[in-house]
Amino acid sequence: MAEGNGQLRAFFERVERMEEEKAAIGEDIKQIYAEAKSGGYDTKIMKRAVRLRKIPIAERLEQEAMLELYLAEAEGRAVE
Amino acid sequence: MAEGNGQLRAFFERVERMEEEKAAIGEDIKQIYAEAKSGGYDTKIMKRAVRLRKIPIAERLEQEAMLELYLAEAEGRAVE
Repeated sequence: MAEGNGQLRAFFERVERMEEEKAAIGEDIKQIYAEAKSGGYDTKIMKRAVRLRKIPIAERLEQEAMLELYLAEAEGRAVE
Repeated sequence: MAEGNGQLRAFFERVERMEEEKAAIGEDIKQIYAEAKSGGYDTKIMKRAVRLRKIPIAERLEQEAMLELYLAEAEGRAVE
């Protein structure tokens, strides 16, 4: 142990406060998706888009092209 | 689709801003654990404690007692 339990307790308080903030933001995000859904958007597709947008665009396009090739191969289709 | 792409784009901007905030808080939490580690605390145990503290205390004690019984059974020990 280090310099006494007050110090450890302070670390817990800081971590737990931050985790509460993180959870609150998670709720905000849910709320935004709920609004988008009410607005007629497909939130499953939105979540896929948000995830994909984290990948640099050149890399993303390369991955999508490769995915298309793999799907075509799996399905016995020709790719142009 | 709903009322045009400006609306959809606004949803993406809100979600992505919130996700950035969430990630920043995640970094803050890492930083707190790094400080705690420098202070001599075992952060693996701290993380277990943080997780366990989310369970109401009566329930937690019950689970720990049951866990102790199960471990004793698995190891062929007697429990007092």
